[in-house]
Amino acid sequence: MEVLIINGPNLNLLGKREPDVYGNESFESYLDSLIRDYPQINISYFQSNSEGAIIDKIHEVGFSIDGIVLNAGAYTHTSLAIADAIAAISTPVIEVHISNIHAREAVRHHSFIAKNCLGSICGFGLKSYKLAIESFR
Amino acid sequence: MEVLIINGPNLNLLGKREPDVYGNESFESYLDSLIRDYPQINISYFQSNSEGAIIDKIHEVGFSIDGIVLNAGAYTHTSLAIADAIAAISTPVIEVHISNIHAREAVRHHSFIAKNCLGSICGFGLKSYKLAIESFR
Amino acid sequence: MEVLIINGPNLNLLGKREPDVYGNESFESYLDSLIRDYPQINISYFQSNSEGAIIDKIHEVGFSIDGIVLNAGAYTHTSLAIADAIAAISTPVIEVHISNIHAREAVRHHSFIAKNCLGSICGFGLKSYKLAIESFR
Amino acid sequence: MEVLIINGPNLNLLGKREPDVYGNESFESYLDSLIRDYPQINISYFQSNSEGAIIDKIHEVGFSIDGIVLNAGAYTHTSLAIADAIAAISTPVIEVHISNIHAREAVRHHSFIAKNCLGSICGFGLKSYKLAIESFR
Amino acid sequence: MEVLIINGPNLNLLGKREPDVYGNESFESYLDSLIRDYPQINISYFQSNSEGAIIDKIHEVGFSIDGIVLNAGAYTHTSLAIADAIAAISTPVIEVHISNIHAREAVRHHSFIAKNCLGSICGFGLKSYKLAIESFR
Amino acid sequence: MEVLIINGPNLNLLGKREPDVYGNESFESYLDSLIRDYPQINISYFQSNSEGAIIDKIHEVGFSIDGIVLNAGAYTHTSLAIADAIAAISTPVIEVHISNIHAREAVRHHSFIAKNCLGSICGFGLKSYKLAIESFR
Amino acid sequence: MEVLIINGPNLNLLGKREPDVYGNESFESYLDSLIRDYPQINISYFQSNSEGAIIDKIHEVGFSIDGIVLNAGAYTHTSLAIADAIAAISTPVIEVHISNIHAREAVRHHSFIAKNCLGSICGFGLKSYKLAIESFR
Amino acid sequence: MEVLIINGPNLNLLGKREPDVYGNESFESYLDSLIRDYPQINISYFQSNSEGAIIDKIHEVGFSIDGIVLNAGAYTHTSLAIADAIAAISTPVIEVHISNIHAREAVRHHSFIAKNCLGSICGFGLKSYKLAIESFR
Amino acid sequence: MEVLIINGPNLNLLGKREPDVYGNESFESYLDSLIRDYPQINISYFQSNSEGAIIDKIHEVGFSIDGIVLNAGAYTHTSLAIADAIAAISTPVIEVHISNIHAREAVRHHSFIAKNCLGSICGFGLKSYKLAIESFR
Amino acid sequence: MEVLIINGPNLNLLGKREPDVYGNESFESYLDSLIRDYPQINISYFQSNSEGAIIDKIHEVGFSIDGIVLNAGAYTHTSLAIADAIAAISTPVIEVHISNIHAREAVRHHSFIAKNCLGSICGFGLKSYKLAIESFR
Amino acid sequence: MEVLIINGPNLNLLGKREPDVYGNESFESYLDSLIRDYPQINISYFQSNSEGAIIDKIHEVGFSIDGIVLNAGAYTHTSLAIADAIAAISTPVIEVHISNIHAREAVRHHSFIAKNCLGSICGFGLKSYKLAIESFR
Amino acid sequence: MEVLIINGPNLNLLGKREPDVYGNESFESYLDSLIRDYPQINISYFQSNSEGAIIDKIHEVGFSIDGIVLNAGAYTHTSLAIADAIAAISTPVIEVHISNIHAREAVRHHSFIAKNCLGSICGFGLKSYKLAIESFR
Repeated sequence: MEVLIINGPNLNLLGKREPDVYGNESFESYLDSLIRDYPQINISYFQSNSEGAIIDKIHEVGFSIDGIVLNAGAYTHTSLAIADAIAAISTPVIEVHISNIHAREAVRHHSFIAKNCLGSICGFGLKSYKLAIESFR
Repeated sequence: MEVLIINGPNLNLLGKREPDVYGNESFESYLDSLIRDYPQINISYFQSNSEGAIIDKIHEVGFSIDGIVLNAGAYTHTSLAIADAIAAISTPVIEVHISNIHAREAVRHHSFIAKNCLGSICGFGLKSYKLAIESFR
Repeated sequence: MEVLIINGPNLNLLGKREPDVYGNESFESYLDSLIRDYPQINISYFQSNSEGAIIDKIHEVGFSIDGIVLNAGAYTHTSLAIADAIAAISTPVIEVHISNIHAREAVRHHSFIAKNCLGSICGFGLKSYKLAIESFR
Repeated sequence: MEVLIINGPNLNLLGKREPDVYGNESFESYLDSLIRDYPQINISYFQSNSEGAIIDKIHEVGFSIDGIVLNAGAYTHTSLAIADAIAAISTPVIEVHISNIHAREAVRHHSFIAKNCLGSICGFGLKSYKLAIESFR
Repeated sequence: MEVLIINGPNLNLLGKREPDVYGNESFESYLDSLIRDYPQINISYFQSNSEGAIIDKIHEVGFSIDGIVLNAGAYTHTSLAIADAIAAISTPVIEVHISNIHAREAVRHHSFIAKNCLGSICGFGLKSYKLAIESFR
Repeated sequence: MEVLIINGPNLNLLGKREPDVYGNESFESYLDSLIRDYPQINISYFQSNSEGAIIDKIHEVGFSIDGIVLNAGAYTHTSLAIADAIAAISTPVIEVHISNIHAREAVRHHSFIAKNCLGSICGFGLKSYKLAIESFR
Repeated sequence: MEVLIINGPNLNLLGKREPDVYGNESFESYLDSLIRDYPQINISYFQSNSEGAIIDKIHEVGFSIDGIVLNAGAYTHTSLAIADAIAAISTPVIEVHISNIHAREAVRHHSFIAKNCLGSICGFGLKSYKLAIESFR
Repeated sequence: MEVLIINGPNLNLLGKREPDVYGNESFESYLDSLIRDYPQINISYFQSNSEGAIIDKIHEVGFSIDGIVLNAGAYTHTSLAIADAIAAISTPVIEVHISNIHAREAVRHHSFIAKNCLGSICGFGLKSYKLAIESFR
Repeated sequence: MEVLIINGPNLNLLGKREPDVYGNESFESYLDSLIRDYPQINISYFQSNSEGAIIDKIHEVGFSIDGIVLNAGAYTHTSLAIADAIAAISTPVIEVHISNIHAREAVRHHSFIAKNCLGSICGFGLKSYKLAIESFR
Repeated sequence: MEVLIINGPNLNLLGKREPDVYGNESFESYLDSLIRDYPQINISYFQSNSEGAIIDKIHEVGFSIDGIVLNAGAYTHTSLAIADAIAAISTPVIEVHISNIHAREAVRHHSFIAKNCLGSICGFGLKSYKLAIESFR
Repeated sequence: MEVLIINGPNLNLLGKREPDVYGNESFESYLDSLIRDYPQINISYFQSNSEGAIIDKIHEVGFSIDGIVLNAGAYTHTSLAIADAIAAISTPVIEVHISNIHAREAVRHHSFIAKNCLGSICGFGLKSYKLAIESFR
Repeated sequence: MEVLIINGPNLNLLGKREPDVYGNESFESYLDSLIRDYPQINISYFQSNSEGAIIDKIHEVGFSIDGIVLNAGAYTHTSLAIADAIAAISTPVIEVHISNIHAREAVRHHSFIAKNCLGSICGFGLKSYKLAIESFR
């Protein structure tokens, strides 16, 4: 089973950026433990700050792998193009967020991509990714 | 560890109600398998169609048990009183939905209770409850 | 043929409450004449001020009787949960209102439940119920 | 007793137009059966696709006959002028719709004319007209 | 000097329609006194309940006479087509209303046609027409 | 003179719930001092988390006692049914809130019930109830 | 007969301010000609840039003179207090505007004061004042 | 192949009306050249300022000819009845506009009829009609 | 203890202005009785129709006296500057209204100043001031 | 004559993506036939999923070639930056869409770029591009 | 070169009012240093809490001096009259704010006056004034 | 001291693009003079039309240099991702705009990034950049 985790804009700064909202751990270190916890799943990882590069990657893997775990960051709330990319592919996509987006500013309450995803998980810190991986089992 | 699953209005009809949206399995049969899968967690269950009874139950357990998994059904979108109950207690609450509420009518896109919950999981069918239980591990 | 009339909040005060809007006749006395007028239909009656109790009753009868005539009162305009209950059952529901809700305040112009009902009748005073019963013939 | 049924735009195509929404029967054939069912009421009929012609007709009969049954079609949702015509006359007007307008697009949820009508009936197919006639008895 | 007064929908019922809003005098009797008061102005009159007929009339006279006094009635608030007709012609148009439209329901607070008119006069009862005529002097 | 204080959802947790917003004193202990301060007034008390039960209570006392002091909690902002109950009775109702609802989230700025109450008092902590009692003198 | 013309903020700059919108003539010179044209009416004049001073003046004259012609300038669109002052007095007030406010930015399309005035005149340049005076004859 | 071009309100003034928006050529002279350019298509033409007459015409031809090219003018933005007429017929309809409606006032950005048309073409001046005809080839 | 009552625009007309909304008693006569009822409190009084003068007065007393009772009249709904003045001082401010502002037009449902006041009292007629004074005890 | 066709995000998946909305043909195969049909026009092609790359390309060709045919896909509805790029260049741009965007979700009804384009064509499937090319002749 | 700094409501309390938002320095002491820093510019100063007085001052200097630096305080967000005064004069006006108004409540995000000013500077604390003075060099 | 100026989409066309809005000077030539004027500040420059590239650059320098001057162009109004990048770094960011964005279309009145910047400067033409640099002194 193959799953790709895609992280969107500013998530490369995890552990460095607004630690009260996003925590202190870098995503890379978290990813290592996740891979260890799920040896039976082939978990790969992609991060980009570019909307276009995220769409390119979704297209690249979206007809062959078994699942995508997508934290689109701020593009969650502004990108109809990523939403369209998700609708265009056959691989199921799980939306995740580290923070509880519903407890933040109003602009983060609406997700363009949610309706095209299989499911949505938010608010569990980095554990949100683990729950998303768990959902593929 | 003690966790209470609370199901709100119309969820007593699961398996019977709009099967294309909610599936064919009754919640009771699903609950049995969930309890078997998590023997180390004491999972109990409450369902009511009454907003007041749900609030009463949240108050009753909300200062003693370890977690609440809440599918407030339609009250998700209309009940500020349940949202206030969640804010008033010390037990963490996980919001779950069987269907992907973001892919349905606009009135279901806003959750009154999400901002007071620890996290939110939706769209995985009955597996949404399992992921919520998983989050307490 | 079996039909249940369900009256929602404050309709127990009919004849007593705002007579210029709702008239002077109590619902019980009206119901007697209605039952006399339709001897071939088994008309029963339920009233509650509780949203949850109305949902419970809809579930109880909604897979067996031939029709429900529902005046949800103020819950018409605030209860997505009752709307979901109507969608969940197989018995057809007719929405009725005594007053012309479109001639009153804006909050009464939108009905949550109308879209899940077979049809809607309003503005004819207590005769609205009679027309609803008539619709089942 | 004299009652005029007025049908607005596109209702001349009944039986031909979007049969899944409006059914297969032409209004003329339905009208014949309605007249047969209510021999004691003098039922006449007018149809026009023109807002102005509908207003002219309302003025013409609105101070002499006993009732108007009005299906204003799309003008229901756009014509303040027809609403004003109804307010200007002394004959009571019943608003009818064949389909359940509340279950259709948002623009059909608001009726300009409802607040000036005695009552409103929708969603019963062609039987909506019969219920309106019944209301005059 | 030639001026045409155009009255829109339902204004043919003046004196008969909602006398508390519009007064008891018929427009024809008022027009007689107006013509007497302004012998130097050639005042003619047109009334129609049809949006299209009003546009036709505006086109017919709008490149030759000196002024149009337009009470578009309810079309004031719904007709972009009449607004376009006013913009298309060279004759100046004065908007008049008998009642104070700003003291009535919200839908009457916005005028589609006002921005294309030279000026606007409302609330003076039938005297609104006289002031409009006066403005051409 | 008889006055009933009605407290709505979550107010049973006073002293326990969000003490920075609502303070540390339980309502019962406050009520004792209030009763002592107003020996000439017969003050009774009712609390429920159920919208329906609150309506039932309003009906029960609303045609016989001299005043109701109502803190409807979150139902203030969502319950048209309670608002209708207040309009339906003859006993005057005073709306109270412990916190300054205008200084909190937007959803708490609109009260469904205020317009049907005699008056409204908010922001004085538990003293809001005392001022309401004072208003009956 | 006594009439007071009240001009609001920035109208002291007439003839100097945005001449393409308001023209080149100062109000004082226009006033002279107006007084000459209506020798039978005692026309006085007041201008202030202060909302409070305008209210004071309305109170001062509003129970004794025969009419007020008010161009409240920008306060038209922001002052509920002036609107309340107009409602509080017995002298009828005519609202005037030099420019066609409906052909300008959206914020100028709503008048707070219009609903409390007897009538409203706009778009005729300085002649708007003359028509207002004319309306008192 | 038979195609009917329908022009709505004020388009009879083409060449005469707001030439900076709509150009100087009359539609009749443009139509002549269009007919010459497409000898293999039977192009006929209808213009009316009346919403009702446009609906009548759509009904008349809408079950027999091969295509309708419709410039509904201002009715594009206000007529749900014309939109319904298009949905009711079997002939495909192409929406055209001479000007770029998206570069004009906000009220012209929404088309009631677009969603029921096969396609939409705007902004090419009179060439918009030619492109619509071309689309039928 | 020193308390200043500040009345805003049009409240100088109390007893004279819209008596069905505000009653027949002048504020001065009411103030006399209030001062008599609270001999232990030094109650002074200020009224102005000017937003600026009200701000000046708030600044003048707002760092020295014990309380301000403010009925800002229409400025309640339009003055962010008065709201800022209240936030800028150390003296607590109580908002009062004579009428029930929630039972009046929509524009009066929002208060700019409420969120910066300690508490808010409305609907008790002139007794609203007494309750505000009472709140300082 | 030189024309560049620019396709935005997800249009590289044409023929593969949601075939019920966009059809089965790949854009490349359609382009071949288009080039064959217009031998006299030099048609080139660019596709990118990146907003920035589309802007770069518009800048690169926008001062030299004769026309741009732009299907900005989802960026149509979210990119003010592409709209600004179109306004900044001298080459005319034609907006095209394969599907009828007005018959889809509300977010697709507003185009940021339309107002800066010469014209707009949508709903004709791949033929929309052909009509755009035709418009340059 | 002559420049006038105008400060609006509550800015007389600078150093005293909400020091976490506005800082601890009084404006007078800051002004002294500013005058020292720009000896070549004649900087004068005016403060008022009255909208009318600010307009009067703008008129007084607005046709003779070289620049106005305006911090209109809360009137920024409510005063169309001050905006009109700025449009009416010939002296350029620079809008300044001490705090970053975009990081505060929503009501402070819209400025009535910005569009009539030459430029706008906010968020630099008292240094905002210095940058405004600098802009005149 | 090190400062980076970042220019967003279409600003590479300065001097070429809409000169009436943005002026005739290229940014490069302006930058030269700016560098000359501030020899003590190390001013570097970056421009990109890509949202992702701008975020990458902000991350790259945002933990080391002393200041960023950001003209995000159209991304100001659509990019939550750039706003998040600014919040994530420690270097202060100054928002600048060449034109007065408040005097342009409504979509340009809201800035996503302003609330995360230290301050904001707009409307001074290219001098806006100079004032931003000045703010760091």
